[in-house]
Amino acid sequence: MSAEALRTEPKRINTPVTNGDRLWNDIVATARFGAADKGGVTRLTLTEEDREVRDWFVAACRALGCTVEIDGIGNIFATYPGEDMSLPAITVGSHLDTQPQGGRFDGILGVLAGLEVLRTLKETSTVLRHPLTVVNWTNEEGSRFSPAMMGSGVFAGALSLDAAHALTDRDGVTVGAALDTIGYRGEARVAPAAFAAYVELHIEQGPLLEASATEIGVVTGIQGLRWFDITVTGTEAHAGSTPMAQRDDALVAAAEIVLAVRNIARENPPGVGTVGFVDVGPNSRNVVPGSVRLQIDMRHPSEAGLDQMEGALQEAVRKAGARAELKRIWSKAPVVFDPSIVDAVRNSAEALGYSATDVVSGAGHDAAHIATIMPTAMIFVPSKDGLSHNEAEYTAPEECARGAEVLFQTILELDRH
Amino acid sequence: MSAEALRTEPKRINTPVTNGDRLWNDIVATARFGAADKGGVTRLTLTEEDREVRDWFVAACRALGCTVEIDGIGNIFATYPGEDMSLPAITVGSHLDTQPQGGRFDGILGVLAGLEVLRTLKETSTVLRHPLTVVNWTNEEGSRFSPAMMGSGVFAGALSLDAAHALTDRDGVTVGAALDTIGYRGEARVAPAAFAAYVELHIEQGPLLEASATEIGVVTGIQGLRWFDITVTGTEAHAGSTPMAQRDDALVAAAEIVLAVRNIARENPPGVGTVGFVDVGPNSRNVVPGSVRLQIDMRHPSEAGLDQMEGALQEAVRKAGARAELKRIWSKAPVVFDPSIVDAVRNSAEALGYSATDVVSGAGHDAAHIATIMPTAMIFVPSKDGLSHNEAEYTAPEECARGAEVLFQTILELDRH
Repeated sequence: MSAEALRTEPKRINTPVTNGDRLWNDIVATARFGAADKGGVTRLTLTEEDREVRDWFVAACRALGCTVEIDGIGNIFATYPGEDMSLPAITVGSHLDTQPQGGRFDGILGVLAGLEVLRTLKETSTVLRHPLTVVNWTNEEGSRFSPAMMGSGVFAGALSLDAAHALTDRDGVTVGAALDTIGYRGEARVAPAAFAAYVELHIEQGPLLEASATEIGVVTGIQGLRWFDITVTGTEAHAGSTPMAQRDDALVAAAEIVLAVRNIARENPPGVGTVGFVDVGPNSRNVVPGSVRLQIDMRHPSEAGLDQMEGALQEAVRKAGARAELKRIWSKAPVVFDPSIVDAVRNSAEALGYSATDVVSGAGHDAAHIATIMPTAMIFVPSKDGLSHNEAEYTAPEECARGAEVLFQTILELDRH
Repeated sequence: MSAEALRTEPKRINTPVTNGDRLWNDIVATARFGAADKGGVTRLTLTEEDREVRDWFVAACRALGCTVEIDGIGNIFATYPGEDMSLPAITVGSHLDTQPQGGRFDGILGVLAGLEVLRTLKETSTVLRHPLTVVNWTNEEGSRFSPAMMGSGVFAGALSLDAAHALTDRDGVTVGAALDTIGYRGEARVAPAAFAAYVELHIEQGPLLEASATEIGVVTGIQGLRWFDITVTGTEAHAGSTPMAQRDDALVAAAEIVLAVRNIARENPPGVGTVGFVDVGPNSRNVVPGSVRLQIDMRHPSEAGLDQMEGALQEAVRKAGARAELKRIWSKAPVVFDPSIVDAVRNSAEALGYSATDVVSGAGHDAAHIATIMPTAMIFVPSKDGLSHNEAEYTAPEECARGAEVLFQTILELDRH
């Protein structure tokens, strides 16, 4: 079937479909590189294991006839030719690096599903109008080098290449040196203008799709995020000889803030609020706590929601009845994906007969950076028990297959325009 | 004035009084041994600094004509003769060891006030009917060797001498070896039957007397205590992608328990309840906590009160909405002092015209052990800001002086019977 046929053939049921077994085999094959004890993967960015999976990916793409370009931060762009090479490429992808003791799917699925689309194009001799580029972004995870989403950040201009090269891991190794060591400091100057759109397939890393037995998440954006540090200062005192009425217990005040954060999130759906870190001083059973530090993470899909939540948090801290200080230490604005790309994803899931629901991503993704420079959207498939960053992370073969099918269908739909 | 005169003279105002300046000088003098940077004292039990203060105390008592006996755990008994040496001795005292960066008063005041009584007896040629013994108990603080209140515990039979000798500090040094090193493993066999009563003057280590501008605390007993460990198990989850309704947040449940402990104590006066220790897992800002460990200290003057508080805690843990496990790991029964000795303290404070109020000790003291083998009571004087176990611990010279006067008056009253 030719690209010409695609443009004129309205019965999508007749378009080629990706091969779920082949995709699963690729997932199993790449999980060898950095295989961890409990079925997961430890493949930190720019390590020997990362080099192995990159080499495997580059070889697989070249075998299909792709042109492979590597830019200065090690992002890999494998481009399959289209009918009209003057058109900007449709781009898909994600990342092949993992967390320590991470899973086999986070990031990996998006790259390998792109590869599966290439395999399908090749196998069926399908020619798209646009070139199709499958990208592997460098260092999405950020567990060896901070910040996370580094490769997409450099590509989108959020971080300069020189600044990124100078960043170091715990052993003092720079990103630049690590790129050289594995041979992935490329020289290609890939311009964002070369691309028409970006679609990233990813596991949900949350429980919503599984809980609602929904096959596909149509991702409309990424939650905004604000991080706060709170210091509560009370008065350290003897737990035996200090009457209740004369206490200034920092932990009691902190407990009220913990419950307030939960309540604020509940009152601002679909926002979430978490106190994940607590440090009590002096932290001794028989001493009334004199100080507590809390670290708070609040997220909401809209700036207005984030403002509302932050205001309520300020009020809760004021009311907590101890000397408490609130500092916002970091924020990320919400990302709203391009409606036309989101529609293409939704239409594709429907055309394939899969149940789908609009969702907002709770976690950050390379797509957040790429959305700043081109029309972008994401596709989610379910995560068992919502688990991720964990060796037990799991998405079933048929769920991965559906994701790849929707990705391909979306590419076909975008290719029509 | 002779002991005979005391028995026949009802005007107590004419009895000799202790010398507050001389007592203060002794407090200043002994604070040299282990002087810390900020005006406090670091004099851990059975160290060189402890040897120095013991030598100083023994020399001072011998200079007054006392017989000094040292038992197998290093307790020092300095006995001043009475008119009738066949009578059991009236006993007063406390401890000369301190916490690391501790204060100049905790324990020390009780021993030095006893010494001041001896100085007053000598100076005024007063002869009591009973012998008077001033005791320095070994290792009340328990910060080098656990358990605390070791010397009084061995004396009262709560701990065997052999078991105590075998206990080690962090460096593996045994109590027995430490006693030998400083030359205070004695051979005296001092029988509890040799004593008629025990009175311990101590700083309050709490804020009640200062807050109510009361000069003397008539201590009617020592609170009972129960220690609990609670483990709350939730489900670790991604802080961004886990909706509020699907969370099983161990910290939110733990925060409810923290507030419940505060409420339970308030509802059971004069009980106190403290969560002093919190350990959150994994304790990372953007991970919903999967586990929290809490350490709880609850105290009440009565067993019935403790039972009530423990029952309410069980109920609160049951309600906390996560898988929570409660374990009672230690308890100490309340101590109720002998009413006749408590009356003697109260009468003495009144006779001297000092404001006094009945109080229950929140902290443990050597008197808790001694109360199990002879009629016992305690006298409290105010602690500035309720502070103790702290270099800033402070009780003013006139407050110390009043305590010593009440101690002496109590001895005189007990001596009449």
